[in-house]
Amino acid sequence: MKWLTFDDDGAVRHGYVEGDEIVVTGDGDLTAVVRGEADTGAEQRRPLHGARILAPLLSPGKVLAAAANYQEHVKEAGGPARDQAKATPRLFLKPDTSITGPDAPVVLNPITQQLDWEVEIAVVIGRRAEGVPVEEALDHVFGYATSNDISARSLDLGVERDGEAWTGFFDWLEGKWLDGSAPIGPYLVTADEVPDPQRLDLTLELNGRVMQRGSSADMVHTVAELVSFSSRLMTLNPGDVILTGTPSGVGATTGVFLNPGDSMVAEVQGLGSLTTPIVAA
Amino acid sequence: MKWLTFDDDGAVRHGYVEGDEIVVTGDGDLTAVVRGEADTGAEQRRPLHGARILAPLLSPGKVLAAAANYQEHVKEAGGPARDQAKATPRLFLKPDTSITGPDAPVVLNPITQQLDWEVEIAVVIGRRAEGVPVEEALDHVFGYATSNDISARSLDLGVERDGEAWTGFFDWLEGKWLDGSAPIGPYLVTADEVPDPQRLDLTLELNGRVMQRGSSADMVHTVAELVSFSSRLMTLNPGDVILTGTPSGVGATTGVFLNPGDSMVAEVQGLGSLTTPIVAA
Repeated sequence: MKWLTFDDDGAVRHGYVEGDEIVVTGDGDLTAVVRGEADTGAEQRRPLHGARILAPLLSPGKVLAAAANYQEHVKEAGGPARDQAKATPRLFLKPDTSITGPDAPVVLNPITQQLDWEVEIAVVIGRRAEGVPVEEALDHVFGYATSNDISARSLDLGVERDGEAWTGFFDWLEGKWLDGSAPIGPYLVTADEVPDPQRLDLTLELNGRVMQRGSSADMVHTVAELVSFSSRLMTLNPGDVILTGTPSGVGATTGVFLNPGDSMVAEVQGLGSLTTPIVAA
Repeated sequence: MKWLTFDDDGAVRHGYVEGDEIVVTGDGDLTAVVRGEADTGAEQRRPLHGARILAPLLSPGKVLAAAANYQEHVKEAGGPARDQAKATPRLFLKPDTSITGPDAPVVLNPITQQLDWEVEIAVVIGRRAEGVPVEEALDHVFGYATSNDISARSLDLGVERDGEAWTGFFDWLEGKWLDGSAPIGPYLVTADEVPDPQRLDLTLELNGRVMQRGSSADMVHTVAELVSFSSRLMTLNPGDVILTGTPSGVGATTGVFLNPGDSMVAEVQGLGSLTTPIVAA
């Protein structure tokens, strides 16, 4: 099923796609659905075309993300290939205010001159996960969505950088947190429709030009490994989101960064396409 | 005023302290209160003594934390003093599942052999902050609480570490995320009762022995600077929490780490004392 959250004439409602219609199944975002508490009683319908779709979950408990998780992206950044036998996931968190939906304009925060894209597969947890082994990890996934881990590659903080490695780390990390830097949607596609999350094509177009093209087969740590690893560190609850890394083709490699007026389209095979316009502050 | 959230015979309620009583002002945690929507109508009272106090906010929108923000702590870690004119705050995020309340046992996650303490002043946002200057930043603070940024100084991930700086950074970051690693409470003390957040004494006792003792006068970046800086990166909303760093005396310096059966008492002057027992998994 393809679930979605939408703005129903000023009210947040959720439902699923059937043909060219939304079958409305309740108020609010998909929190109740991912918890298995969907109310499938009263059934209203709305046309899908023209619906104002929102992020599937407006305020997830946590938004985890994996850095350097596609070998091609690691390579373009100038690093040596990551040794899957020795590496562990490089996770970070994004704040609640990073979440936004399809077609929602993202304001170019003047704190950066180097705003960049990263098409990613978002994983949404459906069943509480605490120390789950890799082979059971996918049983805890409710579904998948297209996402974009928008990243500021530099921050203009008004002070000279001291060149310390840790200063660089924190600049990198803080550059992941800008408002609207995690567009997700349009659909939350249930896991049964994604038989193998490691065989999905991903693309990102900037103003109609393909900038990223890759396959989740290139992941350093699979979706199952990311879920398992995260769940060893902390409890994952229904509605928690994990962004699983990006293929090569980011602006940081080519020196092309986002400007007001630009429009990105991120797409993951079978999950739908996610448009994000950039606007001036 | 000293606000608190508590377990009222199975229901989460909130109120404020008056003498030796809690004046109950509503259901749920303090979210409504920090948003200025407190219902001060119906008034019930409960004895403060013996009340099961919870974290003031059970699931903040985001929990930011500042690393290396007390000069004495920077010094004990072996680093050069941070130059306030050139440094910027080193922020990271902690997940929703890190939040816990006073007296709540924290399970020692077997993923670490080096669990450590960090008494900190928690700042709770009361008014939306977006790009606020330092001199206005404290107007956006609702109040303050005692907190403990419990930190795993090493992670046993089952693979040999590769010695790369970025590997060390992610190990450090992921070590901040264990369940229950951000106890907060017992009170959320309104800002009017804290005339100068840069003149508060902090202590942490482990099994009755003082391990940390410091003053917020030693902060590299003041509370106002942390709020201002964070708000330039992203929007801060009412209920968001910022942990503001820790003085010296952490276990990482002395090699003393937490074991099951240990009990920590974190205390910040005027904000109350926060006990956290450690239990085996």
